Amino acid sequence: MAARGKKLINDPNDVVTQFIEGLVETYPGLQYLDGFPEVKVVLRSDVKVGTYDKVAVICGGGSGHEPAHGGFVGQGMLTAAVSGDIFTSPPVNSILAAIRAVTGPKGCLLVVTNYTGDRLNFGLAAEEAKSEGYRVKMVIVGDDCALSQNQDIAGRRGLAGTILVNKVAGAAAAAGLPLEEVAEQARHASELVGTMGVALSVCTLPGQGTSDRLGPEQIELGLGIHGEPGTAVTELQPVDVVVTRVLKQILSPETQYVPISRGDRVILLTNGLAATPIMELMIATRKAVHELQLEYGVATDRVYTGSLMTSLDMQGFSISLMKSDTTILQCLDAFTKAPCWPAGTDGDRQKTAKIAVPAPASCAMKSDKVLQQSRELTKQGCILEASIEAGAKEIIRIKDSLNEWDSKVGDGDCGTAMYRGAIAILEDMKKCYPMNDAAETVNEIGATVRRVMRGTTGILYDILCKAAYASLKDTKTVEAKHWANALQASISAISKYGGAREGYRTMLDALIPASKFLRERLEAGDDPLEAFFRSSEAALTGAESTRHMQAQAIWVQFHLRRLQVYKLTPSWGVMQSTRL
Amino acid sequence: MAARGKKLINDPNDVVTQFIEGLVETYPGLQYLDGFPEVKVVLRSDVKVGTYDKVAVICGGGSGHEPAHGGFVGQGMLTAAVSGDIFTSPPVNSILAAIRAVTGPKGCLLVVTNYTGDRLNFGLAAEEAKSEGYRVKMVIVGDDCALSQNQDIAGRRGLAGTILVNKVAGAAAAAGLPLEEVAEQARHASELVGTMGVALSVCTLPGQGTSDRLGPEQIELGLGIHGEPGTAVTELQPVDVVVTRVLKQILSPETQYVPISRGDRVILLTNGLAATPIMELMIATRKAVHELQLEYGVATDRVYTGSLMTSLDMQGFSISLMKSDTTILQCLDAFTKAPCWPAGTDGDRQKTAKIAVPAPASCAMKSDKVLQQSRELTKQGCILEASIEAGAKEIIRIKDSLNEWDSKVGDGDCGTAMYRGAIAILEDMKKCYPMNDAAETVNEIGATVRRVMRGTTGILYDILCKAAYASLKDTKTVEAKHWANALQASISAISKYGGAREGYRTMLDALIPASKFLRERLEAGDDPLEAFFRSSEAALTGAESTRHMQAQAIWVQFHLRRLQVYKLTPSWGVMQSTRL
Repeated sequence: MAARGKKLINDPNDVVTQFIEGLVETYPGLQYLDGFPEVKVVLRSDVKVGTYDKVAVICGGGSGHEPAHGGFVGQGMLTAAVSGDIFTSPPVNSILAAIRAVTGPKGCLLVVTNYTGDRLNFGLAAEEAKSEGYRVKMVIVGDDCALSQNQDIAGRRGLAGTILVNKVAGAAAAAGLPLEEVAEQARHASELVGTMGVALSVCTLPGQGTSDRLGPEQIELGLGIHGEPGTAVTELQPVDVVVTRVLKQILSPETQYVPISRGDRVILLTNGLAATPIMELMIATRKAVHELQLEYGVATDRVYTGSLMTSLDMQGFSISLMKSDTTILQCLDAFTKAPCWPAGTDGDRQKTAKIAVPAPASCAMKSDKVLQQSRELTKQGCILEASIEAGAKEIIRIKDSLNEWDSKVGDGDCGTAMYRGAIAILEDMKKCYPMNDAAETVNEIGATVRRVMRGTTGILYDILCKAAYASLKDTKTVEAKHWANALQASISAISKYGGAREGYRTMLDALIPASKFLRERLEAGDDPLEAFFRSSEAALTGAESTRHMQAQAIWVQFHLRRLQVYKLTPSWGVMQSTRL
Repeated sequence: MAARGKKLINDPNDVVTQFIEGLVETYPGLQYLDGFPEVKVVLRSDVKVGTYDKVAVICGGGSGHEPAHGGFVGQGMLTAAVSGDIFTSPPVNSILAAIRAVTGPKGCLLVVTNYTGDRLNFGLAAEEAKSEGYRVKMVIVGDDCALSQNQDIAGRRGLAGTILVNKVAGAAAAAGLPLEEVAEQARHASELVGTMGVALSVCTLPGQGTSDRLGPEQIELGLGIHGEPGTAVTELQPVDVVVTRVLKQILSPETQYVPISRGDRVILLTNGLAATPIMELMIATRKAVHELQLEYGVATDRVYTGSLMTSLDMQGFSISLMKSDTTILQCLDAFTKAPCWPAGTDGDRQKTAKIAVPAPASCAMKSDKVLQQSRELTKQGCILEASIEAGAKEIIRIKDSLNEWDSKVGDGDCGTAMYRGAIAILEDMKKCYPMNDAAETVNEIGATVRRVMRGTTGILYDILCKAAYASLKDTKTVEAKHWANALQASISAISKYGGAREGYRTMLDALIPASKFLRERLEAGDDPLEAFFRSSEAALTGAESTRHMQAQAIWVQFHLRRLQVYKLTPSWGVMQSTRL
């Protein structure tokens, strides 16, 4: 709301020339004529004037519609684009300069939007160029479906349909056709396309104030692309309703704006007017394709969604429909180097758009494993079961203490969440943990915890378990050193994905000293039982050391906060002892 | 102003899934997993799971940054993109589904933006996928230069630099490199890039109210892409000033965010945040390229300008700089089918960006002609001179009447404008009209009139003269029938470019009957003198007939209005007689 009218510009008088300079910095295949400020012409840098052996295609008009038309200059589309000042037709000399700069013996086609200024300036330039000996033809595009045909001798305004006409003309020229045929294909395309726009805001000219023509809950239908008022103002509605209304107007059998009827195939262009996010344009596209098929019996051959012909900073979109035929499709699909022509839109869909979510690759294998497994617990399985049960019960016992500690730095629900996890572990353990397989059991614990604890905490514990599982899973007989390695892998994973290190006041401040101590003592040949129990003490000491630390994580402090240091240590100490 | 918060959506809860449906309608090379609403995964439709012989590259994160990342799926860039809800990390199962859907024996690389939620969810998915037997690596991108390095253990946020990292990773994968090397190249790229953003408005979540955090004259520097406040709020300034400030922060030698120093070469990405027009982004690009060269001694190898990683409907932009090297450049230039990767940006510029405005092709020829021409007038030249003088003097005589008639339907300056044209014709005639060459003289009259009358009126008369010139110029001896043909050509041109026909209450209503009458009488073998004088009467009758006509032109009525019918007829009657 406050932002309207704010612009990233310097002097309002320089916006067009500075745009062209930026455009040419961005695209090495483009050049411009050194005639600023009057001559504002973007052209292909690979065309050699005079000897160019294709028909040149030139389009242009007032600025404020970027990327039209400079962004559509390139092999297979425009040979040059002529810009006027904002919403102002380019002067005749500028158009003439463009014609002279790119027109070879095959001549040039001017594609002109149907505004009097453009018709006259391009018209005069065409006549002058002819008098200089150039072969010139002109095609005028008027695709607006908002105004009725008879309302106006100037006819329908040129809107986003012009982009499609330019693509057709550019492809015909690139194919080497003579001027008459290029012009004929462009004219043919221009007669098959209709457009209607919807505005959510009015555009603001550089350096000028913002119009309050549209209320906060209003939209305008049938607008032009120069801030002209639309033909109707309505309340803001869901975009599906708006799209339905726009399609109805374009396809009205009374007005016959476009020669499209049931059973025909069409090209759809959902064009953003500048400030509308691509997400919203795509939502409009989705509805348009469905509605065309279901309500009008019209299949969509190609879809273009993007801000191709804009209106300064206007919020809104237009829909253009072009009747599809083989020639049109070939031209639209033809290769182009024009940087702003929508890529990846060519060709028919070869596969269905929607495919099934794949099942886990190892699913079958895993269930086999579980099935094969004896229901009777081995000695190791018994110890593991006892250890898990002891750990879980310890957590249940200290639930209130955990909550109390948590309430000092967090929202006081840590004990409750841990309690939920412990209860679920005890339940799932009986049902489905393959207790004789330590690795798989650790994996299952992760799944249980994540399911019931949810959120970041659940994910952290699951990462811990998954990493331990990956470390353990190929070990035939899990021994003390394997548990130590698994702990180390868990710490690495939590550190890597959580972004914390020792001293950041997280659970790692307990786990890291425990892990270090354990590995040292095992390597030194200590009794594993002794080493495990004392590593648990190291964890507690580490946890205590966080008492005076500064929490360092801005982003993760709420996930990895101090009390979580304590969460894990009791059960870890217990789990560590399962193989003793 | 009223428009903020207006969105082209349906249910705020469906924006992401409906976006994906529209995306896939637009790009036939994309598919999505049938797991809505939880699983929101876009993937290449040409990748066959299981047997895919390249490393898969997967990126993702919360939605609201379109076209990131779904629009970057395609050969040479991403293999799949995983979307969460708006600004919410995708759930682990959704990421796992993406991994399973595209990962073959060579494994997959997860490129993850540095947010805790993304790190953890992608991290857990990676661990789970590993436990299922997949080969998985993860690279975390944190390119934000707004927050100081030490402020935060989570490190720098992932911003638009991620797009460049994805392109590098995608190209490395497409080249057939093994997982370790693809990951290494992505990591390398991620360490070379820095980004800083500028907001002109705060983004609005679908279905929610608009923040008034930023005043109407304020901008925010160093913002995130989730509506997080920036590090500084300043007054709105010219974009050149803003760009200077942003570059200074990114390239600060104190913070050393990016390893770029004098003599290095860089990649520039000027990224729109959604609602900023491409014109404004290009203006920022222009400044950035110049400033990098002039102030930092850094040449720009490649430029990408566009809205690639957005923040819902935010107005603003970010600048990313990546240190350039041969590998990076090769990867960025490599072919891709990802629809939203900026096309036409590859390769070095081969030619200068700015070329001279071409001179008229026939210029030399024309001046030769004039020089060769005898200064002494032929009999034809004398008659032409006398006729033009008579016509011009007649216009001067009726100046006040023309103004008076014009004041009834227009702004009453018609006589004054015509007077200016007539005076200029009389002056130029003495100086430079090649009076012995009727065609060239008609051409010169057009130039004179357009120069002094300016605007649409000048153009219309110049079109009239140019068309007559083109019709006359190859005629050796201009006779009555040639003048008649020239008049016919003039009428056609005015009708074609002006869009008017007989009965539209324009000058054509006088010219058309005159032309018809003239041709009929000449064909009937009448005396040319008689035919010309009577055609002039037909013009006057035609002009009178417009008295009761309805002006039909909405767009051109002010250009071609009723009184202009009268403007031309007196002098035309005189000019027609020059060859008698």
